[in-house]
Amino acid sequence: MEFTVAQVAAMLGGEVKGDGSAKIKMLSKIQDAKPGQIAFLSNPKYEQYIYTTQASAVIVKKDFVARKEVTSTLILVDDPYSSFTALLEEYHKLISFQKSGIEQPSFIGDNSTTGKNIYRGAFSYIGTNVKIGDNVKIHPQAFVGDDVQIGNNTIIHPGVKIYSGTRIGNNCVIHSGTVIGSDGFGFAPQEDGSYKTIPQLGNVIIEDNVTVGGNTVIDCATMFGDATIIREGVKLDNLIQIAHNVEVGKHTVIAAQTGISGSTKIGENCLLAGQVGIAGHLVIANNTSLGAQAGVSKSIKEEGQKLIGYPVFDIKEYFKSYAVFKKLPDLNYRLRELESKVLKHNNAHSSVD
Amino acid sequence: MEFTVAQVAAMLGGEVKGDGSAKIKMLSKIQDAKPGQIAFLSNPKYEQYIYTTQASAVIVKKDFVARKEVTSTLILVDDPYSSFTALLEEYHKLISFQKSGIEQPSFIGDNSTTGKNIYRGAFSYIGTNVKIGDNVKIHPQAFVGDDVQIGNNTIIHPGVKIYSGTRIGNNCVIHSGTVIGSDGFGFAPQEDGSYKTIPQLGNVIIEDNVTVGGNTVIDCATMFGDATIIREGVKLDNLIQIAHNVEVGKHTVIAAQTGISGSTKIGENCLLAGQVGIAGHLVIANNTSLGAQAGVSKSIKEEGQKLIGYPVFDIKEYFKSYAVFKKLPDLNYRLRELESKVLKHNNAHSSVD
Amino acid sequence: MEFTVAQVAAMLGGEVKGDGSAKIKMLSKIQDAKPGQIAFLSNPKYEQYIYTTQASAVIVKKDFVARKEVTSTLILVDDPYSSFTALLEEYHKLISFQKSGIEQPSFIGDNSTTGKNIYRGAFSYIGTNVKIGDNVKIHPQAFVGDDVQIGNNTIIHPGVKIYSGTRIGNNCVIHSGTVIGSDGFGFAPQEDGSYKTIPQLGNVIIEDNVTVGGNTVIDCATMFGDATIIREGVKLDNLIQIAHNVEVGKHTVIAAQTGISGSTKIGENCLLAGQVGIAGHLVIANNTSLGAQAGVSKSIKEEGQKLIGYPVFDIKEYFKSYAVFKKLPDLNYRLRELESKVLKHNNAHSSVD
Repeated sequence: MEFTVAQVAAMLGGEVKGDGSAKIKMLSKIQDAKPGQIAFLSNPKYEQYIYTTQASAVIVKKDFVARKEVTSTLILVDDPYSSFTALLEEYHKLISFQKSGIEQPSFIGDNSTTGKNIYRGAFSYIGTNVKIGDNVKIHPQAFVGDDVQIGNNTIIHPGVKIYSGTRIGNNCVIHSGTVIGSDGFGFAPQEDGSYKTIPQLGNVIIEDNVTVGGNTVIDCATMFGDATIIREGVKLDNLIQIAHNVEVGKHTVIAAQTGISGSTKIGENCLLAGQVGIAGHLVIANNTSLGAQAGVSKSIKEEGQKLIGYPVFDIKEYFKSYAVFKKLPDLNYRLRELESKVLKHNNAHSSVD
Repeated sequence: MEFTVAQVAAMLGGEVKGDGSAKIKMLSKIQDAKPGQIAFLSNPKYEQYIYTTQASAVIVKKDFVARKEVTSTLILVDDPYSSFTALLEEYHKLISFQKSGIEQPSFIGDNSTTGKNIYRGAFSYIGTNVKIGDNVKIHPQAFVGDDVQIGNNTIIHPGVKIYSGTRIGNNCVIHSGTVIGSDGFGFAPQEDGSYKTIPQLGNVIIEDNVTVGGNTVIDCATMFGDATIIREGVKLDNLIQIAHNVEVGKHTVIAAQTGISGSTKIGENCLLAGQVGIAGHLVIANNTSLGAQAGVSKSIKEEGQKLIGYPVFDIKEYFKSYAVFKKLPDLNYRLRELESKVLKHNNAHSSVD
Repeated sequence: MEFTVAQVAAMLGGEVKGDGSAKIKMLSKIQDAKPGQIAFLSNPKYEQYIYTTQASAVIVKKDFVARKEVTSTLILVDDPYSSFTALLEEYHKLISFQKSGIEQPSFIGDNSTTGKNIYRGAFSYIGTNVKIGDNVKIHPQAFVGDDVQIGNNTIIHPGVKIYSGTRIGNNCVIHSGTVIGSDGFGFAPQEDGSYKTIPQLGNVIIEDNVTVGGNTVIDCATMFGDATIIREGVKLDNLIQIAHNVEVGKHTVIAAQTGISGSTKIGENCLLAGQVGIAGHLVIANNTSLGAQAGVSKSIKEEGQKLIGYPVFDIKEYFKSYAVFKKLPDLNYRLRELESKVLKHNNAHSSVD
């Protein structure tokens, strides 16, 4: 990818000051920038760097007045920071979707269809009866099982494994190593102490605009027609466990290494920190915030609480209790002292009374 | 897969009422069923649906008497629920084992043998001197290292990685992304603060009827001739860590994200909840039950205990202590009040005494 | 691999007693050894086995005097244990680096170069502009993205996924399923409750002599030019989460299932036990030791502490507090008793005073 400074300026609705034909390949920080790169200057603290930077272009505020010579081409805009952020997003989109075509060898089963501008990396596997939308990127070594459906603009990173029957919406990103649709953990204890496998025949539904990190696992639902559901806009980090029949509500964010047990329903706009554990068959209210390593063993009915501990309770109360926990040996000592004082006093008293 | 209602009825030892030649492809719930699907009616609460369902067949109790017209073919049995469950299991087995043959490209090294009715998916890799039994399914992108042995009827899902020398028994299921036989975490501290790798030369043995979830890791044992052992019937969930030289006893069940440190021996018929951590070189007695997020730092000698906390103790005692923990600031306050009362009183007393 | 006893003895600087032409293929314990294997005798407790072992050779102390007939060839050395350990290391190195050549099909993009004695397993994928050093082993189904650089003698196990732009040093080992360079977890909340993805454009740098276990995830840094950095000699276990912009200092060891949140900087020579969680934007001092399941929510400034709990404090203090925690119901009871005694006494008093 390569753009002229003039093209970038046009995109940002900015004005070029200097050589508009200079070529831009990459973005960088002003203090690190090299030729072919574009940087920005927003915070006056960094002004010094604009006189020494090797950046081919720098985005600056409209009213910027140079106090020394500037060799970089300038792009004048209203808000350099948000212009740069817009460029970052554009650049990220470009590199995310730049791959296209079909690398060989790759595998696609009978009766499967793919949309326009698809990428199918080498050693990727697509089963039978799969429907894949436009602009989808199936990276190398990814696996897409039979009867899977994937919407438009979704990116499946290298080595993702998607079991049969999974549905994935539009604009999703699934990172490497993640497993979607593996069997729920269901085993019926037998009289001889062994366990019989409960067949897992449901699927996983991932709605639009969902991001899933690396090496996360989302199990399928148990029964035919049931689904483990990840609602629109959910963001899942790495190494998360989502058990069978779980539902994660719209725009809920879950940090790494958290685990949700079977059939639990997480509300909308919740924030779950890392290494949280939630037991099965619970309902967690909307806007619940769970601190790191929290353990939830009962449903949370009131919305908007911030909780922590095992089992969880109010985060401020937890820290107050924990402050006393740290002094427990002292408390214990004081209690014993007091007991002996009271005992001594009472004895003394009873003898004098 | 497609069966006639008559074939299904024969399998269940049931009687057909209606069109026995109707074709069945799938199972469903009575309220959701579509043509080509079979459902069941057991709970009278659902009777209404039998008059509106589109199911091609419904399994009902022998003595079921329709109060309105039923268009579905009926299969009359003693116990519709257990008949349906039997069908689910049969169906699950069928779809689990339906793939066979060798997709190309796939890789198999010298001197490796595979049994009857094998499936080797595209981009699967089998090393040298590997022995694989009958009816084994090696799904796409799975890796089976040199000198590995796998019994009969074992399913290796897409992208599983099995290091050299691993032994896996009969009727096992290993889900996607799981790694078996990676190096144990052994490093000897050196005087300069660096660490020297302790060579990991043992292997992993997985006995019969073991299920392992997705993205779990089972490390090999350290020494030649030693093994990390997963005994018969063990069920491991997703994202579990099993370190070098661990042994997990028969019919023990371990939930997601639990970690067992090196050389620890877990007994038989234990139940470990999610996110449990167990330190190294311990012995955990049979029938031990560990609550979620429990931390075990000492061996557990008495069988049949239910434990929780870090470090663990009796689960009921834990919850009693925790109830007081939540009121610790109040306890602290009351103790201070009492101290000042006693102090005041004693002072008053000593002045009057 | 096969060596004569004489060759092994020469390597160890030992003296052969018996048939120096005997062939050795493997190492074993003296009590388990079979023909073709070499064992050692160091602890006198095991002397009995030297008279019955089938080992083709046994390494013994220089001054060993057999009290019965020994059929194995002996190799006499100063320290049998360390000689055997040296053999183990040599053997481990041999098997780790024995694979070489290019298996087909495998994929390599334009403008990528590999050094001498390389192994590229079947279904491995190397992108464009990749630079790989000498003696590097890219195992089957591994993925190496565009613009990646890998030093010499580094082993990439089956199915590892390395995103574009990652730098990996010399003598590293990356185990199966590990993901390096996936997007950091960065999302900006929007007014409508949804989240906007913050582009993740940095990379991951792994220095020399680093080992990473299986199914670990290391996210890339957020900004261009920034990196998530794993310093020289770091040892990471399985299923670890390393978020964007984290730095792990030289020779730090981290056990399984631990998670480090974004932008946190871990010092040198730290020891983190399993299932530890560390919040974002913290600094952890050198030589810090964190116990299992510890939760760190503030920076740790003093070096060399041993900490545990959530949030962490001194490990000895924690266990003292925890000992009282286990007796909290009793404490609570005693406090109430005391309160009622004092109350009764004061009442009695106030009535008599």
